[in-house]
Amino acid sequence: MSSLQALKDRLAPIVDLGKTSRILSWDQQAMMPPAGSGHRAEQMGTLQLLSHRLFTSEETGRLLEEAARETESLDPDSDDAALIRVVRRDYDKAVRVPAELRAEMARAAAEARPVWVKAKADSDFQSFLPVLERQVDLRLRYIGCFDDVEEPYDILLDDFEPETSTAEVREIFDELKTRLIPLIAELRNDDVDDSFLRGDFPHAEQEALDKSVIELFGMRPDTWRLDPTVHPFASGAGVDDIRITTNYDPTTMKSLFSTMHEYGHGLYGHQLPRELARLPTGQPCSLGIHESQSRLWENLVGRSVPFWRFFYPRVQETFPQLGMVELDDFVAAINKVQPSLIRIKADEVTYGMHVILRFELEQDMVNGRVALPDLPEAWNAKVNEYLGLDVPDDANGVLQDTHWAAGSIGYFSTYLLGTVMSVQIWERASEDIGNLEEQIERGEFAALREWLGDHVHKLGRKYSPQETLRRATGSTIDAKPYLAYLESKYRAGIMA
Amino acid sequence: MSSLQALKDRLAPIVDLGKTSRILSWDQQAMMPPAGSGHRAEQMGTLQLLSHRLFTSEETGRLLEEAARETESLDPDSDDAALIRVVRRDYDKAVRVPAELRAEMARAAAEARPVWVKAKADSDFQSFLPVLERQVDLRLRYIGCFDDVEEPYDILLDDFEPETSTAEVREIFDELKTRLIPLIAELRNDDVDDSFLRGDFPHAEQEALDKSVIELFGMRPDTWRLDPTVHPFASGAGVDDIRITTNYDPTTMKSLFSTMHEYGHGLYGHQLPRELARLPTGQPCSLGIHESQSRLWENLVGRSVPFWRFFYPRVQETFPQLGMVELDDFVAAINKVQPSLIRIKADEVTYGMHVILRFELEQDMVNGRVALPDLPEAWNAKVNEYLGLDVPDDANGVLQDTHWAAGSIGYFSTYLLGTVMSVQIWERASEDIGNLEEQIERGEFAALREWLGDHVHKLGRKYSPQETLRRATGSTIDAKPYLAYLESKYRAGIMA
Repeated sequence: MSSLQALKDRLAPIVDLGKTSRILSWDQQAMMPPAGSGHRAEQMGTLQLLSHRLFTSEETGRLLEEAARETESLDPDSDDAALIRVVRRDYDKAVRVPAELRAEMARAAAEARPVWVKAKADSDFQSFLPVLERQVDLRLRYIGCFDDVEEPYDILLDDFEPETSTAEVREIFDELKTRLIPLIAELRNDDVDDSFLRGDFPHAEQEALDKSVIELFGMRPDTWRLDPTVHPFASGAGVDDIRITTNYDPTTMKSLFSTMHEYGHGLYGHQLPRELARLPTGQPCSLGIHESQSRLWENLVGRSVPFWRFFYPRVQETFPQLGMVELDDFVAAINKVQPSLIRIKADEVTYGMHVILRFELEQDMVNGRVALPDLPEAWNAKVNEYLGLDVPDDANGVLQDTHWAAGSIGYFSTYLLGTVMSVQIWERASEDIGNLEEQIERGEFAALREWLGDHVHKLGRKYSPQETLRRATGSTIDAKPYLAYLESKYRAGIMA
Repeated sequence: MSSLQALKDRLAPIVDLGKTSRILSWDQQAMMPPAGSGHRAEQMGTLQLLSHRLFTSEETGRLLEEAARETESLDPDSDDAALIRVVRRDYDKAVRVPAELRAEMARAAAEARPVWVKAKADSDFQSFLPVLERQVDLRLRYIGCFDDVEEPYDILLDDFEPETSTAEVREIFDELKTRLIPLIAELRNDDVDDSFLRGDFPHAEQEALDKSVIELFGMRPDTWRLDPTVHPFASGAGVDDIRITTNYDPTTMKSLFSTMHEYGHGLYGHQLPRELARLPTGQPCSLGIHESQSRLWENLVGRSVPFWRFFYPRVQETFPQLGMVELDDFVAAINKVQPSLIRIKADEVTYGMHVILRFELEQDMVNGRVALPDLPEAWNAKVNEYLGLDVPDDANGVLQDTHWAAGSIGYFSTYLLGTVMSVQIWERASEDIGNLEEQIERGEFAALREWLGDHVHKLGRKYSPQETLRRATGSTIDAKPYLAYLESKYRAGIMA
């Protein structure tokens, strides 16, 4: 057997452990009896520990060296050459981190979740503070495993958006911030009537509608699940086992938008290269690329006029109170621009500022520029500065997201990177497909699904996020198409 | 650190992997999109492989030797002395089996399940035959790993009911068979009216009733789940994470009985010794002991007159069509003795013969006394001989159970061993508690739960099944109390 094949055989169970962890995590958030979190923390820690040990063993290193020699004459674009690149990068990072630290990070995440759930419910930052301190301390220990670091935050960011530096993100985000603050002031339209989006939207009807929208977008029912959870996410254990979740609030129909968002994540997972399923190269490229897919379906499709021309009658049928609401008024309402406190409820124009404030605060946390007990104050000040709002309590402020409880510091920026990239991908897909808007207006999504599969999903993790984007669109990340999209969509006023 | 502690630290992740596999298996049967079974087979295989490798490593062997020396002066009843005994036995068995064979057994089980589901739906034994051949072949390879074997089947049985030989089971089963065949002839009461047990029993009402019965029996809602599945089972990932399942047939109320059955399994898992949760000794003793718990709640409680004196009004309220059915008639109907084709629907008197025929056929399969293509014929002949029935098709015959698809050959006998032991345990619990029937008639189950916890569950896996039973009841397995129970319950005619 070649060393390359031996390396692949060694990597396959590690990929399996990763997918197993994803199912345990899905289970914890969607199914597990709450008291089970203690056991679950142990189980997640064990999987993490075993996976890390297997991957960082000398045997993996030796096989990697030998396989690299075996494959050095291969086309750099071949699957095998890409595998060596990706594994070498992962390996060089992983061997720096002691298995015990990895396991503690996994355990801390599982243990923190119920603390966060309760702290958020009680709007009690103090009860969350020890958990946050532990998480930040673990990240500092993690950063300490690396040397020749440009900025400490680079290390955290790289785990979510590989080969992307804090400086690069800062440049994009500064460009966005400069434009977004005046754009919000210009485009906000507080007097658009969206009162009909609040009312009686029964759980069962929302669920049926959500299922119908993912069927419409396209999925094989024997490969997907849709379940309720507190904080929606997408997960799964492989291309044929896709799990998306949503959150039902019977006073709004927002589960529909979160379902369309998670559909985008799910479709990415579903269209990853099947032949690389048990290799690192067959996994998603980065969280930014992942988010470009979810935001594309949520916003570019799901808040567009052509989509609603097709789908609105079905929604009106489901929720008869919308029978008297004109399509134009409905589309204007779901695209209402108005600064708000909760990131996941934010409109397209204000959304970016939610991310930018987190990106900035995370760097402050890691660099010690903000003491953690002062975090709510720092949070509230930025919300006021960027969005002009007062934060009434921490549940609507610093405690709103689950990420820091999970130790995912460095994650948030991928939301905005993905959002920016989604417009670049959309424009290229539109160009290639030709009549994409007409197709959507007819409820046809196959061409879009296939384009995304062929140009984005099929690349898996073979290339860096920016190289993946370049291959899909001809350009690396660029804030301009996104800003132009916002201006053109919102300046004209949205009319169906 | 002592070697004993090092051994415990080495065993904990192995126990975690076992619990992780249990959740993946629960997920596969209760939640997973069906197309996911390919991935799942790989993941289960990987967990099995890693667990086996960790456990059978030389390091485990070395720590076991050293820990054994450290603990040789301990009281044999101490947790640590028991741990050494249990781990030594497991280790000596496990090191004989190559990891690759273990992994293939796990993979084969996951891959076989959808084949069995379809074969059963189509009543098509031919499509199941290759899967069964693979499973039997794997078991023969497994048996081949052991020497000085009394009977080949001993090896399979020992995996489900440790330290219990085929000869011992045969002796008990022969005693039962001799009495059960005439007892069935004597006690069958085909003309009892049970027509009201078929009709309109809507899923939602059954589910609410099932939830209320497990609440009544006693459970902490934040530690339990109840979900629908095809073939009910109990699982979980620890004392605080108990998952039971049931099957809803809207034309009968049988989900109630399967829920009471699985409750018994769940309670066992819930009351295992918490302080040994990540050690082999903190796990269930055997499948026979497990089944003694489920049968106790299903039959000794759930088909008893005192229970129904309490619970029947609630059932009548849920299913108004029972409003005109007298309690006596209802209790007689749910205890109707009548030979039938499906094991899990069998009454208490005929149940044993379903198990005995499987126990005999399994030995024939392993010993080559029946060719696998002839299995349906052999099955049908035994059903005719033992129960006097003709099998109309394989879905109602040889394909009815999932066990062989999962490779669980040697499992069935534990159902009857457990049923026999359940009566011994019940009688001893009644004696100790004093007024158990009166308590049940008042809907009080705490004393029974606690007695089972203290005398059975808390022992975990510290002792062999027979020693566990002896400590709980003062006697090892004995068919007589079970036979006497059947005679006394059914001869008199059941009257509330």
